[in-house]
Amino acid sequence: MNANIPNSDKKRVVIVGGGFGGLKLAQDISKEYFQVVLIDRNNYHQFQPLFYQVATAGLEPSSIAFPFRKIFHNKKHFHFRLAEVNNVKVEAKIIETTIGEIQFDYLIIATGADTNFFGNEQIQKFAMPMKSISEALSIRNTLFQRLEDAVNANTEEEKEKCMNIVIVGGGPTGVEVAGTLAEMRSYILPKDYPEMDFKKMKIVLLEGSPRVLNAMSDESCVKAKEYLLKLGVEVHNNTNVVGYDGEYVTLKNESKIPTKTLIWSAGVKGNSISGFEESVYLPGGRFAVDEFNQILGTKNIFALGDVACMQSEKYPKGHPQMAQPAIQQGKNLAKNLKRIAENSDLIPFEYKDLGSMATVGRNKAVVELPNYKFQGFFAWAVWMVVHLKSILGIRNRFLVFLNWVWNYLTYNLSLRLIITHKKK
Amino acid sequence: MNANIPNSDKKRVVIVGGGFGGLKLAQDISKEYFQVVLIDRNNYHQFQPLFYQVATAGLEPSSIAFPFRKIFHNKKHFHFRLAEVNNVKVEAKIIETTIGEIQFDYLIIATGADTNFFGNEQIQKFAMPMKSISEALSIRNTLFQRLEDAVNANTEEEKEKCMNIVIVGGGPTGVEVAGTLAEMRSYILPKDYPEMDFKKMKIVLLEGSPRVLNAMSDESCVKAKEYLLKLGVEVHNNTNVVGYDGEYVTLKNESKIPTKTLIWSAGVKGNSISGFEESVYLPGGRFAVDEFNQILGTKNIFALGDVACMQSEKYPKGHPQMAQPAIQQGKNLAKNLKRIAENSDLIPFEYKDLGSMATVGRNKAVVELPNYKFQGFFAWAVWMVVHLKSILGIRNRFLVFLNWVWNYLTYNLSLRLIITHKKK
Repeated sequence: MNANIPNSDKKRVVIVGGGFGGLKLAQDISKEYFQVVLIDRNNYHQFQPLFYQVATAGLEPSSIAFPFRKIFHNKKHFHFRLAEVNNVKVEAKIIETTIGEIQFDYLIIATGADTNFFGNEQIQKFAMPMKSISEALSIRNTLFQRLEDAVNANTEEEKEKCMNIVIVGGGPTGVEVAGTLAEMRSYILPKDYPEMDFKKMKIVLLEGSPRVLNAMSDESCVKAKEYLLKLGVEVHNNTNVVGYDGEYVTLKNESKIPTKTLIWSAGVKGNSISGFEESVYLPGGRFAVDEFNQILGTKNIFALGDVACMQSEKYPKGHPQMAQPAIQQGKNLAKNLKRIAENSDLIPFEYKDLGSMATVGRNKAVVELPNYKFQGFFAWAVWMVVHLKSILGIRNRFLVFLNWVWNYLTYNLSLRLIITHKKK
Repeated sequence: MNANIPNSDKKRVVIVGGGFGGLKLAQDISKEYFQVVLIDRNNYHQFQPLFYQVATAGLEPSSIAFPFRKIFHNKKHFHFRLAEVNNVKVEAKIIETTIGEIQFDYLIIATGADTNFFGNEQIQKFAMPMKSISEALSIRNTLFQRLEDAVNANTEEEKEKCMNIVIVGGGPTGVEVAGTLAEMRSYILPKDYPEMDFKKMKIVLLEGSPRVLNAMSDESCVKAKEYLLKLGVEVHNNTNVVGYDGEYVTLKNESKIPTKTLIWSAGVKGNSISGFEESVYLPGGRFAVDEFNQILGTKNIFALGDVACMQSEKYPKGHPQMAQPAIQQGKNLAKNLKRIAENSDLIPFEYKDLGSMATVGRNKAVVELPNYKFQGFFAWAVWMVVHLKSILGIRNRFLVFLNWVWNYLTYNLSLRLIITHKKK
């Protein structure tokens, strides 16, 4: 079966995945030379850096999700298809998808990364990942369901399991979730649940390495940990989780933490696709690509962002799996595709590190620019401006801003809803 | 097992259901005399009149959902429990719930109504009801999934099934959904799906009686139908649906309409609870109550709103199943409970008809006040003001207003997201 894609006399570029990298590429690509087919399993682009605010009832999903079809209104060279890709037939230039086969002239794999449970099936079964809006909503629903369960609990032990929250992974996501939950425990939950004693609620952040925000400088790590402790988060470094049965987290040292809520943000693996020679699949689900993002050994197939691994002297393990490398690679690849069409030389990719940042709570953030590090209120303000600027759409930007202001002034949004839905 | 409810030296009023009636009662009840336990299967109050805007991607769920715990911040006599009620032990003054047994002094059943498929299991299986936010979200997801399916359809017949939408029931809900979808077809969908021909998309409203908005005056009915036809909705009166297999709607005259999307708003039935004498269960799942909303033959048990049927000369079949009778009964019952505590005479309920209204589209609405009927732009403005005023919470009111303004000016919100979630 063939998918319905209109014929065109231009070369067809098929982009799989509309995350930061795929979207940037689709936006920048030359419509003079190419027809673009964007394939994604969702009909919207997701703004990953703010998933944690959806999970903690600070933002609505629609504020950080943007329908692809709306982004590309009035672009006649562009076609969106809601589908998943199962396999690539490299020689035949065909991808096999859930809506049929699609022929391509150029294929770009920008499928991003998903949660890595490192093969532990028990953890995978009971822990909650947060790599999509849908997963963030599941976390939100679970958090508030557990509190309702705690109200009804008949034993102290059961109550403890329902109230405690354990977050595994001290990267930006883990730190941001832990901090936000701790603030919610201080300001909001005691009002919502006057019958409960929130001094008994533990929020625990577990990190395998000696530091939280391990990719940042000592200064930022120390400050972030200080902020977390100030908010009452229990931070355990050098701590590995070996098991979780839905009621107790088991640590490597065999001690156990009772909780029915385990949020897993301890690692990612690339969403690679089958069909290539074995040698291009690197550990962590990433594709080995050259300096033009071309998958090694192929002629017209590229990978970018989290699923690509471009090894270089400066980045022997590839670039960090974050938004910036993906966006910059998307931009560069758009230029290079045009150069291919015009028979010009290609431009090798060079990553420009714009810095990194994480927020822990109100007035508490750490920011590292290439030549300047700072923390506290100013960092927090910068974090907000940078994220607001990155959000697509005036309306969404305004809504997020409005939510933040409201939240800052009142300490109290009204998004604490447990909305589940049945599928027909 | 007993549910955990704190002891109190006040009499305990248990309210089952936090819809318009139950919520009003819980808000008005005398905290001097009573402890209040509110039980609901959701942790939020739902603003039913705007479900159709959630279903048609005009509003976010959180704009019309209000967490009970937030509504009752700082009310020490109030306790919320997330649970469902299975049975009432009338003599023992106990309700059996999913979180255990709860003792009551006074019980108020305010469980509202659910969709009535009139026993047709095939229709129930494939049609989509819209009596909760969760169901409205399912409709939204389905609508946009079907359009994606239409893009991929390989035959004209399949495409037709994916594009057509049939709405059964010409009450306010059916009329509002049909009108909004028709506007979306005119203004938004052709931009989102430039490859598709929306002249081929049928929006069909089927109504068994000779008129749409059958409870309103001739003038309003005629005008509403005129509006619908102007928007390009196919309106079929005197038309009964006898079957639906997920692909074809079968009418009583044996003709068939191809569609994979059938929205069912053709009737409701009360959510009654078992445990009472047979004689109090009236047709349509309603409880027979006296003029004080007391369930006949009981001493301390009341029913109000959609699930209650108070027969009188003026309303031989009980009051209309709408927000106003429920709210007014909740208010009256709060007064009467206080009178019971003070040994005063009870006040019989008298329904004050404030009028009714429905909106069909931009600048198109019909309004009937007790002494005054009007239609068009002014009716539409009145409809908006009345609904905005009824929404709980300043922030929600502001958000809904903002959405409406934005939508009115741009014809284009960005809520067309297919977000499903897995349950852990």
